Amino acid sequence: MFKSERKQSARRTLAASAAAAGKMSLCRACLVLLSAEEPTYDLYQEKDLAAKFIGCMRAGDGLRFLGAPLDKEVSPQIVLRCICDSCYQLVQRFYGFQRMCEESFANFEKLLAEVSSKTTSNNYITAYQTVMKKSNGHSIGAGDGDHPLAPHSKQSYTAAATTSLTANTDDEDMIDITPRSSPGDLIGSSSGYHRETVTESDTERDFAPNQRAMHHHHQHQHVPTHSAFGDPMDGALSFYGSSEVHDEIPGIGQYEDFHTIDWQRDIARDRMRHRYIVKKRQDSLWDLIKGAIDAGSGWLCVLLVGIAAGCVAGMVDIGASWMSDLKHGICPTAFWFNREQCCYPDKQSVFEEGNCSMWKTWPEIFGLNRTGTGPNIVSYILYILWALLFASLSASLVRMFAPYACGSGIPEIKTILSGFIIRGYLGKWTLLIKSVGLMLSVSAGLTLGKEGPMVHIASCIGNIFSHLFPKYGRNEAKKREILSAASAAGVSVAFGAPIGGVLFSLEEVSYYFPLKTLWRSFFCALIAAFVLRSLTPFGNEHSVLFFVEYNKPWIFFELIPFVFLGIMGGVIGTFFIKANLWWCRYRKFSKLGQYPVSEVLFVTLVTAIICYPNPFTRMNMNELIFLLVSKCSSGDSNPLCDYKRMNISTGTSFIEVTEPGPGVYRSIWLLVLTFVLKLALTIFTFGIKVPSGLFIPSLLLGAIMGRIVGIGVEQFAYSYPNIWFFTGECADSNLITPGLYAVVGAAAVLGGVTRMTVSLVVIMFELTGGVRYIVPLMAAAMASKWVGDALGRQGIYDAHIALNGYPFLDSKEEFAHTTLAADVMQPKRNETLNVITQDSMTVEDVENLLKETEHNGYPVVVSRENQYLVGFVLRRDLNLAIGNAKRLIEGINSNSIVLFTSTTPTQNLGPPPLKLKKILDMAPITVTDQTPMETVVDMFRKLGLRQTLVTHNGRLLGVITKKDVLRHVKQMDNEDPNTVLFN
Amino acid sequence: MFKSERKQSARRTLAASAAAAGKMSLCRACLVLLSAEEPTYDLYQEKDLAAKFIGCMRAGDGLRFLGAPLDKEVSPQIVLRCICDSCYQLVQRFYGFQRMCEESFANFEKLLAEVSSKTTSNNYITAYQTVMKKSNGHSIGAGDGDHPLAPHSKQSYTAAATTSLTANTDDEDMIDITPRSSPGDLIGSSSGYHRETVTESDTERDFAPNQRAMHHHHQHQHVPTHSAFGDPMDGALSFYGSSEVHDEIPGIGQYEDFHTIDWQRDIARDRMRHRYIVKKRQDSLWDLIKGAIDAGSGWLCVLLVGIAAGCVAGMVDIGASWMSDLKHGICPTAFWFNREQCCYPDKQSVFEEGNCSMWKTWPEIFGLNRTGTGPNIVSYILYILWALLFASLSASLVRMFAPYACGSGIPEIKTILSGFIIRGYLGKWTLLIKSVGLMLSVSAGLTLGKEGPMVHIASCIGNIFSHLFPKYGRNEAKKREILSAASAAGVSVAFGAPIGGVLFSLEEVSYYFPLKTLWRSFFCALIAAFVLRSLTPFGNEHSVLFFVEYNKPWIFFELIPFVFLGIMGGVIGTFFIKANLWWCRYRKFSKLGQYPVSEVLFVTLVTAIICYPNPFTRMNMNELIFLLVSKCSSGDSNPLCDYKRMNISTGTSFIEVTEPGPGVYRSIWLLVLTFVLKLALTIFTFGIKVPSGLFIPSLLLGAIMGRIVGIGVEQFAYSYPNIWFFTGECADSNLITPGLYAVVGAAAVLGGVTRMTVSLVVIMFELTGGVRYIVPLMAAAMASKWVGDALGRQGIYDAHIALNGYPFLDSKEEFAHTTLAADVMQPKRNETLNVITQDSMTVEDVENLLKETEHNGYPVVVSRENQYLVGFVLRRDLNLAIGNAKRLIEGINSNSIVLFTSTTPTQNLGPPPLKLKKILDMAPITVTDQTPMETVVDMFRKLGLRQTLVTHNGRLLGVITKKDVLRHVKQMDNEDPNTVLFN
Repeated sequence: MFKSERKQSARRTLAASAAAAGKMSLCRACLVLLSAEEPTYDLYQEKDLAAKFIGCMRAGDGLRFLGAPLDKEVSPQIVLRCICDSCYQLVQRFYGFQRMCEESFANFEKLLAEVSSKTTSNNYITAYQTVMKKSNGHSIGAGDGDHPLAPHSKQSYTAAATTSLTANTDDEDMIDITPRSSPGDLIGSSSGYHRETVTESDTERDFAPNQRAMHHHHQHQHVPTHSAFGDPMDGALSFYGSSEVHDEIPGIGQYEDFHTIDWQRDIARDRMRHRYIVKKRQDSLWDLIKGAIDAGSGWLCVLLVGIAAGCVAGMVDIGASWMSDLKHGICPTAFWFNREQCCYPDKQSVFEEGNCSMWKTWPEIFGLNRTGTGPNIVSYILYILWALLFASLSASLVRMFAPYACGSGIPEIKTILSGFIIRGYLGKWTLLIKSVGLMLSVSAGLTLGKEGPMVHIASCIGNIFSHLFPKYGRNEAKKREILSAASAAGVSVAFGAPIGGVLFSLEEVSYYFPLKTLWRSFFCALIAAFVLRSLTPFGNEHSVLFFVEYNKPWIFFELIPFVFLGIMGGVIGTFFIKANLWWCRYRKFSKLGQYPVSEVLFVTLVTAIICYPNPFTRMNMNELIFLLVSKCSSGDSNPLCDYKRMNISTGTSFIEVTEPGPGVYRSIWLLVLTFVLKLALTIFTFGIKVPSGLFIPSLLLGAIMGRIVGIGVEQFAYSYPNIWFFTGECADSNLITPGLYAVVGAAAVLGGVTRMTVSLVVIMFELTGGVRYIVPLMAAAMASKWVGDALGRQGIYDAHIALNGYPFLDSKEEFAHTTLAADVMQPKRNETLNVITQDSMTVEDVENLLKETEHNGYPVVVSRENQYLVGFVLRRDLNLAIGNAKRLIEGINSNSIVLFTSTTPTQNLGPPPLKLKKILDMAPITVTDQTPMETVVDMFRKLGLRQTLVTHNGRLLGVITKKDVLRHVKQMDNEDPNTVLFN
Repeated sequence: MFKSERKQSARRTLAASAAAAGKMSLCRACLVLLSAEEPTYDLYQEKDLAAKFIGCMRAGDGLRFLGAPLDKEVSPQIVLRCICDSCYQLVQRFYGFQRMCEESFANFEKLLAEVSSKTTSNNYITAYQTVMKKSNGHSIGAGDGDHPLAPHSKQSYTAAATTSLTANTDDEDMIDITPRSSPGDLIGSSSGYHRETVTESDTERDFAPNQRAMHHHHQHQHVPTHSAFGDPMDGALSFYGSSEVHDEIPGIGQYEDFHTIDWQRDIARDRMRHRYIVKKRQDSLWDLIKGAIDAGSGWLCVLLVGIAAGCVAGMVDIGASWMSDLKHGICPTAFWFNREQCCYPDKQSVFEEGNCSMWKTWPEIFGLNRTGTGPNIVSYILYILWALLFASLSASLVRMFAPYACGSGIPEIKTILSGFIIRGYLGKWTLLIKSVGLMLSVSAGLTLGKEGPMVHIASCIGNIFSHLFPKYGRNEAKKREILSAASAAGVSVAFGAPIGGVLFSLEEVSYYFPLKTLWRSFFCALIAAFVLRSLTPFGNEHSVLFFVEYNKPWIFFELIPFVFLGIMGGVIGTFFIKANLWWCRYRKFSKLGQYPVSEVLFVTLVTAIICYPNPFTRMNMNELIFLLVSKCSSGDSNPLCDYKRMNISTGTSFIEVTEPGPGVYRSIWLLVLTFVLKLALTIFTFGIKVPSGLFIPSLLLGAIMGRIVGIGVEQFAYSYPNIWFFTGECADSNLITPGLYAVVGAAAVLGGVTRMTVSLVVIMFELTGGVRYIVPLMAAAMASKWVGDALGRQGIYDAHIALNGYPFLDSKEEFAHTTLAADVMQPKRNETLNVITQDSMTVEDVENLLKETEHNGYPVVVSRENQYLVGFVLRRDLNLAIGNAKRLIEGINSNSIVLFTSTTPTQNLGPPPLKLKKILDMAPITVTDQTPMETVVDMFRKLGLRQTLVTHNGRLLGVITKKDVLRHVKQMDNEDPNTVLFN
């Protein structure tokens, strides 16, 4: 695609590049070139840089240029100049040292002139690189291009960079910010705003100190008001009340990457769209049909998402199962069969591998016997090799094509659903790579599950399908309704638990969850589960993962061990969180973070070497959990069921009691070993750069613990069958079911790790089909949650959110301090507030203000003396409006008065005034300075605000942005407020 | 209790009465005396009057008097005067005619003086009555007293009225509004604010026209600003930021009856309390323990609620079952056994009654045969007599002791949970009478269910237990968390569906449902279900109401009839809603409403006469549903299972097909008849004045429809077994299960009536235990919901809320209009806004303002010329503060300047200023006049506002109250805004 593109004329390419620059690809290419010595996978640190850079790019002269119509003649010099200027700004900002910048600036300008004159084709990036190299003295390495198919080597600077420029022209979703774009754009055109973002470079290591310093500086001296408010985030436009304005402003509803969305505005926009459609419906039959399609599009979208999620999950399941078995052997008659399918006609137990004659282990393929020392060594080695192959494939795919595909994705999805933009996180490449990588990493035998990533995969599907429906694809707030439903579908397919999925989405993932979404999420989750069940003919017919049916009720006394399991679950969960966090922090700030693939390979090697000898660790975790939760029946080949069975009489009735045989004792020791191993491995595994979830590892740890406790209680009951609390119950059979303990233990540890509550119980209930065991599950979940919260406040997801500095305003945490809005707002004392007056500033004044400050919007007041709040105007709108007016309206010049009122002033001496009332948001949300922060936090949460204005007696005092709130919350909790990275 | 009270000295009684008057019992007594010619049960209309009257009472001189310390000498005359004045105000207001008032006023004054001089004891009410009688010329009837044990006769004016005075002195929760009450009161003392309210009188019939007229007048001329805002609702105090003030203002957090609560304020209060406890926790071990108790009190409370709800539900179940069987016969060996328990050893089917030899039918008791014409007639007559007895008991109990106990209660609970106060609706008498009345009305064989009322019962329990914990009992917003959990427990015990209960509470009932509540609700629901299951040893062990297990999967083709059932469910549901609403409206506005007991008896008589002959209508509805959803097995005595069984061959395999025998055909006709009868009876039954729910009738209608359709489809499959969509599926047995159709049909009709979605599916799933049938249930529920919504927007609960004019701001409906805050706010154009200036009004000015207007609060502005908003002050606080200041602070007189600033003015000529900054809420929520109403509605919903102030450029323009919003919503939907009755 881009090869043919490259052959076209320079002019056309440049126009396209300009458009692409609007989409920040140039910026990103630039950033990669600038900052990456050795590209690594630590994306989270890089985002901050990227966000800032994009801000610079937009805020600088580039924006005004890019705002110009594309069909005008654009000389390569202008484009180059624009890019270079922005880059220069970035360099100046991040390398920050005044001295260096100043001495290099002259050099830079000269070089630039030299290069520009020579530029003839689209190799200006190469030229620019040269410039940057020379002017900076900073060595430049290549990062991954924007397009996953981009060449990936350190030598191919040009190719990589060019790719990221030209590849974008064939991207279907292009932000068109030219003022001339058609008015119908709002509804009809295809300018979505979601794109793949694949930039990887460890800027953090190099820049962190400077950046931190700059950040501080930036906040208290450089920008008088506030950095969060100051960070330019255009593309936002708050309109209430004046609907006709919408058609005139293109690019509406689009946000910059790594910025917070404005729920109120997006919802208002959707209502306006809805009203428009309802009004039009009377016009013609076609409009009526369109209205009906629009009304049904939400359902259609979640239907498609559900079907797709079910299909993808089915494929992942089948693929992972096949590849897992590939480590052990192959089905020669049909190599695409996994062991179960291969052995299906024989209906043999999964545990005793090798009994099936159809299935050949690798030693057999190589002509050896199935058992013996030699074949065992061959098996061992092949197992390790296959594991390394799968792991390296998975890690390389993730590294090369979709770095966002690593991890479980749930912390990021929580952040995204709370109203944050991370472009590309839910894109199609992420989906593809995550699905494939997940299969591979699960098959590699790593201690990870596919359930968390399934949520990410489903969310990607939701995001992709939402673009089919402009109602959702072009409105970030509405899109989150689809994403909520999709995440429910993710859990639904992961566990076969549709109700649990919806509750998980409601409780854990979603932020804004209206009841309409609940119903739709349920539908989506159900469809996904249904499709998955139809797809996997070899799955058990109950459509639950670990269907267990115990024919014995639990007795009241057993609540004691259940609660004990809950307490242990809380302790283990908290220990896991703390250890994992410690390791992730170490990885992040040490050299280790630079070698993600090596780390994956090392972890895989260790896992494979350690896990193979122990049969419990060698088998799939799912299979092991199934063994642990199963009940024993006589003749069972399960080593945990090696009981001596006998009948004893207890008073009036006979009880069949069971004494454990040697197999059970041996199994217990193996299980203890497995527990320790898996716990340690999970701590080091969760966070490596492959798709990895921790539902299954947590469940496994809990199931092992539960089974051991269960066997203990069983033997206690066997030893003392006549204790009052046993005899009171219906004593006609063996009382204790160790499998139930495994289920309860699994719930306890999962609860301790994730701090889920209702959804946990419902998922476990759906997972096991045990409707009668809700009370034990509940008891364990409660104990686990309480103990966990007492030991450490945050669940694993919240801990990772905090680690990565995402701007997530937790709706579960209560703000318990007594501060007032006046304490939090910007500007602080002795600083001045940047405002625009409604009828006394000239165009020049406004332009100077725009240049000097970096706020993304400005309050408009009556006058400097009477700072009574009139409204709020966004930087982007101001820029566009002034630029357009200067070009299009006769007489407007720098001395024109900017008017935000509808009345024209009487003295009309100067040039005609510039009337900008149309772009003024007359309904900003305000609070008084005496409003307690708890109310402000509540308003931010519930109304989804991006900022609020603070007044006193009607006078404007300052502004509170979401970042201010987040920083304040951190500060009050005695945490470092600078860990809040994004805006 | 009150008999001994009556013997005490007049002075003590009067002091108590004064306190009681603070609790509005006097008002209510007064109201009853004034307005009731013939007390009837139509409470909903009366509430408006009561609310207004209470307002008058408080707003008038009474308040100032009642604010005085109770230990002061209080002469009977003053008390009498106070009451009479208030009553006079009421009379003047409602009888409204200037002429009448003026001519009676002189007379009234003379009589009053005459009576007061004669008053020696607590018979002043009698005296007052005489006054009223004479001055009004309006005949007075007695209503029910406040206390349920009060004598109930038209003759005992004195007794009834006195009761309502004195009975309150033994009420444990007394509002203490004296300024001297101890500061520790906020946390420690027992001044809850929930009380029994039992006032019944059909004021609506007499006053409606005047009232409507007055209402209108009131709004547009009488009160310049607005009636909703104008309606006095004191007892509210919005404080933010100044925590120490709290201790000085007693009575905080209390609301008047039929008023809206202020969520923000209550939540802020709770956080303040929480902070106080956390701070104190460091002080001593005891405080630490208290802190721990406080932290656990929510869980303890829901635990108690769950246990109690389970117990009460168990008792109701057992009682209703026993009494239902009493209509047919008795167990002579143990009369307290119901038929099932009596016949338990024989394990006989329930349907074929009389086969059990232990159980004696009434003819047998009377020495007749079991069968034959004579015994049948005896049975018939006794059936009718028992039914009438039960129904009359139920209706009389409700009528006499707890009129709020009628109906299902869900519309009212929805309203209460949305932030409205209906005192006594969730009280202990309501609980008791509703439980007993429910047993009776179910036993009477009326076409009603006990599931809806169970929610009401559980909510009553929640309310009562919440008073044990001041954290919840004394904070209306927090109390609603417990109520949400309780309503979940209600559904949980009604259906044995804990998860469905939580989702029902979330989806249908609750308004503000934080995630913490979700977890707690789940706990509560589970405990309740667990306790209930433990209590009913004869219940089936699956703890589900209609446990069914079909061993056949459904096939894809069957989705067509399932969706058809859904469509029919939507149609039937909508028809039912419309018909029931029409009848309820007729009842409300016609003579019929005056004879509630007669109506109940008539309906019971008709029901009994019609239903006895048909065996399907004669049996319990639960049993019939169970029959309908059951699958047939050979040898079943179920008449629906009278099939001829045979095997036919179809291609490769044999199919057992079943041709219906005569029993099935006969049953179908009986079922059709049953359907028609039950539908008609339910329409007339739902709304009569006994506890009545409609879950079970709806389920029954649906189950009948479903079973008939199911038999049809079954026969279709039998006739054409080789059609492609049958043969494709696993064709090794009979394909169609008519019982499943009954389940799906039941879900469809229930969905059509209630418009539930997720909770419906989950409840049905839990009810039947059919995890594999979620998809059919979902399909039917969706079809039903869509068809229902297309035919008529509101579900039955919302329709009843609208019918009764409750101030319920539906969070599911979207506000789709383009109006602005400026269009909705009060005052309208050409009206003036009543404000208080911050430093220029004298005490006299303020007092005059308080007298002339009836707002419950006033905005405070900088000055009349510069109406910049400073804050908001509540009427109640102003009254208290001025009263106290005049009494306690030297030098304060009518000419003192009222200051809301902290600076003292320099010119200090007059008396010392009265500083009231402490009572000023400095953080009122404001919006600009250009804010679209959709945002305002959103803020009201999400932040739980009671009012918001509207500004323009910092200047105050007006106020929007919740009532304004509700009226505006109605107006925009082309409904009568005057149907919004409360504030």
